Amino acid sequence: MAPPPDWIAVDWGTSRLRAWAMGADGRPLAGAESGEGMGRLAPDGFEPALLRLAGPWLPAARGPVPVMACGMVGSRQGWVEAPYRAVPCAPLGAGFARAPAQDARLAVHVVPGLRQDRPPDVMRGEETQIAGVLAGDTGFDGVVCLPGTHTKWAHLSAGEVVSFTSCMTGELFDLLSRVSVLRHTLGGGWEDAAFAEGVGETLARPERLMTQLFALRAASLLGRLAPDAARARLSGLLIGAELAATRPWWLGRRVVVVGAEALSAIYLRALGLQGVAAERRDGRAMTLAGLAAARAMLAEGVA
Amino acid sequence: MAPPPDWIAVDWGTSRLRAWAMGADGRPLAGAESGEGMGRLAPDGFEPALLRLAGPWLPAARGPVPVMACGMVGSRQGWVEAPYRAVPCAPLGAGFARAPAQDARLAVHVVPGLRQDRPPDVMRGEETQIAGVLAGDTGFDGVVCLPGTHTKWAHLSAGEVVSFTSCMTGELFDLLSRVSVLRHTLGGGWEDAAFAEGVGETLARPERLMTQLFALRAASLLGRLAPDAARARLSGLLIGAELAATRPWWLGRRVVVVGAEALSAIYLRALGLQGVAAERRDGRAMTLAGLAAARAMLAEGVA
Repeated sequence: MAPPPDWIAVDWGTSRLRAWAMGADGRPLAGAESGEGMGRLAPDGFEPALLRLAGPWLPAARGPVPVMACGMVGSRQGWVEAPYRAVPCAPLGAGFARAPAQDARLAVHVVPGLRQDRPPDVMRGEETQIAGVLAGDTGFDGVVCLPGTHTKWAHLSAGEVVSFTSCMTGELFDLLSRVSVLRHTLGGGWEDAAFAEGVGETLARPERLMTQLFALRAASLLGRLAPDAARARLSGLLIGAELAATRPWWLGRRVVVVGAEALSAIYLRALGLQGVAAERRDGRAMTLAGLAAARAMLAEGVA
Repeated sequence: MAPPPDWIAVDWGTSRLRAWAMGADGRPLAGAESGEGMGRLAPDGFEPALLRLAGPWLPAARGPVPVMACGMVGSRQGWVEAPYRAVPCAPLGAGFARAPAQDARLAVHVVPGLRQDRPPDVMRGEETQIAGVLAGDTGFDGVVCLPGTHTKWAHLSAGEVVSFTSCMTGELFDLLSRVSVLRHTLGGGWEDAAFAEGVGETLARPERLMTQLFALRAASLLGRLAPDAARARLSGLLIGAELAATRPWWLGRRVVVVGAEALSAIYLRALGLQGVAAERRDGRAMTLAGLAAARAMLAEGVA
C-alpha cells in the first residue's frame, strides 16, 4: 500500500486530464491520466472524472486532501470559473477558486489563468508552467516560449509576467496537415533542410505564407516535393511566420522553451537558426513545479 | 419537349457537378446540378453521374452530342487525366482529353488545367473562366483574380496566361471558422468596419496574421469583440495577408474579379480600400463563355 499523498496535482486541459499523487518532499508518488478533458465534461462530470483517477490515492478516514488544479478546468465551461488575473502580475497569486466537490476527502483549488487587455490575450495552464520556471530560477529575466496548440510567448521580469502573446501555430499545422487539401501531400517523416528553408522564407518574407501553402500542394503534384520534405517545410513556414510575428519577444533576450521534447526541439532548432541559443525545460516538470508553488502558497496562507 | 442541345457544358469540380444543355446560339437551354463531384466518384462513376443530369437532354437517335467539361474531372483522380499545359500559354489550346464514355450519345472532351514550373503552381477549371474573360475582351491586359477555396491570381497579356499564383485563403477561412477554436467566437453576420480594419492590418504588417488569429478568440472571451465583427475581421485579416502576398499582381494593373457575387464583393471591397477599382465578371457566365470557346475550337479543329 502506497503512503497517502500530501496533496494531489492536476493538469486539466481541454482534451486530457492528468493527475499525480504528490509526496511531502514535492515528488510524485504516482500518476494517472485519462481522456476526460474539460471539453467532454458537463459541470457534474468533473468530480467523478477526478475520482476515477485519484480515488485510489485517497485515504478513507482523514481530513480533505488538497488538490491543486490548473488549465481549462478553471474556464467558464469548466468545473469552477477562476477569473483571469490581469498582467503585469506574478504568474500565481491570490484567488485560487474552490471547486464544489461533494466528496469530503477532496479540497480542490483551481489556479486562475492570466489575461492581457491590450492587445487582448489570455492563457490558462501556461501561467502554472511559467511559475515552475520561476520556482527554479527566481531571478529569471527573459522570455518563456510554450509551444502547443496555441503557442504562448511571455516576457518575464522581476518575478512578473509583463506581457504575452499567442500564436495558433499548432492548431494551424494540425488543420492544414490533417483536414486541408495538403493532407494528400504530407508524409509522416521529416527533412531538416526543408524545415530550415521554410523557416527562413517566412521569417524574411512573412507575407509569402499565403502563397507558399498552396505551393506545397502544387510542387507535390508536379513531382517536385517529397512527402517528408513537404511536412517539414509546412512546419518551417508556419514557425518562420510565428518567429516573424514574435521577433520583438526573442530577439536579444534570454529564451526558455517549455514543452514536450519533440515539439520543443523544433522550436529550439528554429531559434538556433536565428542565432538564439534557447534553453529547454520539460513541460510536465514545469507544471508540477508550478502546482507545487501554488500548494506552498496555499499552505502559507498567501492565496 | 425542349429542342435537343447543340452541345453540353459541364463544370465538374471536387464537390459539385454542374451541367447545361447549350443551344446553337451559345445560350443555355437548361441546367442541372448535383453533389456528385470528382471527390466522391470512382472511375466508373463519372458517366452514370453525368447521365443522371444530362440524360434527359440527349436525343435517342442521332450522332454523339459534344460535351465540353472543365475542372477536377480532368485530374489524375478524375474521369480522364488531361495533363496540365505549361504557362506561358493561351488559357485554352490543343489537347482536350477524351473521356471513355460507353454511351454512344456522348462525346466527352475535358479541358486541361495549367501548370507553372517556377514557382510551382497549378489550376484546373480557372483556365476556362480566364478563357471566358478573354472571349469577351480579346485584348485584355491585366490580372484576373478568381476567389474561391484556393484563390488564383493570373497575369494575362497578348492572349496568354503569363504567370499565376494561388492562395489558400478560402480554405483557411473555412477551417478557422468551422473547425478551429475560433468557431466559438464567430457570428453569422458581417461588420464592414471590422473587415476593413483587418485588411489594413495584415496588408501593412503581414506577420501579424499569426498573432491576430488567436487575438480574435481572446478579445471575444474578454467581451471586447462581437461575433459578427469577429467574422468580418477574420475575413479581413486573411484577405489583407493575401493582398500583401499578391501586391505585385494587383498594384498598378487592371484587375478583373471572377466569381460568385458575395465572395467577389468582398474582394472588390478589399481592393477598393487600396484604391484599385476592380471590375467584376460573373463566375458561372465566364465558365460558360470559356466552355463555348473550347467548343468552337473543337468545331474548328483547332484542338
